[in-house]
Amino acid sequence: MSTYQLPDRVILQEEGPREGFQSEGLIPVDAKLRLIHGLAETGLEVINCVSFVDVRRVPQMADAEEIAGRIQRRNGVRYTGIWLSPKGFERALASGLDLVPNVFTSVSDTFARNNNGRSAADLLHVQSGMIERYRAAGLRVGAAHVFTAFGCPYEGKVSPERCLEAVAALLRTCEEHGETPEVVYLCDTVGAANPLDVSKTVDLVRNRWPAMEFALHLHDTRGMGLANVLAGLQSGVHRFDTSVAGLGGCPFAGNKSAAGNVCTEDVALMCEEMGISTGLDLDRLAEVARMAEEIVGHSLPGKFMNAGRIRAAAGNAVA
Amino acid sequence: MSTYQLPDRVILQEEGPREGFQSEGLIPVDAKLRLIHGLAETGLEVINCVSFVDVRRVPQMADAEEIAGRIQRRNGVRYTGIWLSPKGFERALASGLDLVPNVFTSVSDTFARNNNGRSAADLLHVQSGMIERYRAAGLRVGAAHVFTAFGCPYEGKVSPERCLEAVAALLRTCEEHGETPEVVYLCDTVGAANPLDVSKTVDLVRNRWPAMEFALHLHDTRGMGLANVLAGLQSGVHRFDTSVAGLGGCPFAGNKSAAGNVCTEDVALMCEEMGISTGLDLDRLAEVARMAEEIVGHSLPGKFMNAGRIRAAAGNAVA
Repeated sequence: MSTYQLPDRVILQEEGPREGFQSEGLIPVDAKLRLIHGLAETGLEVINCVSFVDVRRVPQMADAEEIAGRIQRRNGVRYTGIWLSPKGFERALASGLDLVPNVFTSVSDTFARNNNGRSAADLLHVQSGMIERYRAAGLRVGAAHVFTAFGCPYEGKVSPERCLEAVAALLRTCEEHGETPEVVYLCDTVGAANPLDVSKTVDLVRNRWPAMEFALHLHDTRGMGLANVLAGLQSGVHRFDTSVAGLGGCPFAGNKSAAGNVCTEDVALMCEEMGISTGLDLDRLAEVARMAEEIVGHSLPGKFMNAGRIRAAAGNAVA
Repeated sequence: MSTYQLPDRVILQEEGPREGFQSEGLIPVDAKLRLIHGLAETGLEVINCVSFVDVRRVPQMADAEEIAGRIQRRNGVRYTGIWLSPKGFERALASGLDLVPNVFTSVSDTFARNNNGRSAADLLHVQSGMIERYRAAGLRVGAAHVFTAFGCPYEGKVSPERCLEAVAALLRTCEEHGETPEVVYLCDTVGAANPLDVSKTVDLVRNRWPAMEFALHLHDTRGMGLANVLAGLQSGVHRFDTSVAGLGGCPFAGNKSAAGNVCTEDVALMCEEMGISTGLDLDRLAEVARMAEEIVGHSLPGKFMNAGRIRAAAGNAVA
């Protein structure tokens, strides 16, 4: 017997156009816009569209400004982008996208050095400068991201206590500037989490900061994505980053070690079936998921787009 | 905050050679034997090797006797097969495989008619005759299978109460012959279950029959396979049917609606990482999973064989 309470409603924030396309080859701007516009018809409230990052390092995002400028906005949808540096923030500010000023850190120092070119301590220092820039632009901190919250390829597993320390350090940095993020994202950056990690870490940080919202950014690298979502839901998480069709990784395209965020429509299906409202149109999401496959030119890992609802599932098994 | 207790140990019973190959084209006997022999080196205690079913209906299993006769047995491994009729039982009895005399029913009457050619009520009557045959052969009932325990494509969702009624009817049939199965399998035959279904149904039947072991046979048709395993573990289930590499369904081979059992090595990884012993050698399982892909000639859905352990996972994501 297990006892848990599931939330009544979850918010799925779409990462496909941003994190998903970042992991693919070069996709034409028109195709990216087609996906973004399709996603906006599904009930999604937040679509992360682009990264304002170094185009030499991430050439897939060289079209960030063009994408931002050509989005045909639909009411009720926030079209966001991310940045990791002052220069990226300036670009985002000029782009006209909906800004969510963010701060970030990495539990794993080695990951921070390899991915962000700085130690984790330096990253915190950089966040101070970013917060000042946000305030100078009349903005407040909206989100805090904790990368490698559950583990990384270099340092292995991250304990709940280490994750809590990283959250505490990032929140202290915000407090020093009189800021409190609206939500803290625990990011399973490389798909290292298992459900018990999720339960323990979420329970620990929610117990320490009961008034703070904690969200999950999960990758399905090792097949535990939806199980980790379930563990998050059971521990009271009601906001998840997801990507349509599981865009962002394809083990069938010679890119065997990458894997996308948990799949938007598969997470939505699981939630809806368990009585958790998502506000999403699953059939339209499935159509957009198939569009994503067509755009990238290969199969994507999402299951619902192929399996459909229960009544449409195959019954050809003997047992 | 969620509270649950996970078991210390689980038993994963391999379905790949039986249910998996049944969903593929015709595979040479030598290749099937290679997979079975590889699986036997991984620590698996039970390998379901063949079905003794109508070869006109399931030509993939026409080689059941040859497979059974050519298995090179390894100590400590049980090599099993299934049957659904008196004739199948006679063949299994003559095959020399390790027999687990079973009874079965289907919650969904429509599924029973379409899959087994009889109403659910008739199926129960047939089980009475099977039990008599088992006893005449000096055997006792080992397992009871409840098909479509969570839903089916024809009748849709199955409530926990309907599933309980089907379990009760099957156990009554056994009792009428002085038999009690060692384990009752709740079979999500077509992958209709969500984690809340699993929690509710398992809690309900375990509460009604506290001395009975309930196992789960789950399909990953809609991506919830591992989440359903987690829900089962949280409710005290410690025996699962699984298939290496997720063999049994491949959305990338024009077989879009089929999906295999939950993947042996992915389930094993999740369990081991959560501190639940499986007794399995994950690296060897990954090798056999790759062998399975080579044998069937296409990608299979298992993730661990590509992603590896955390330290070997990719760290190329920006966030």
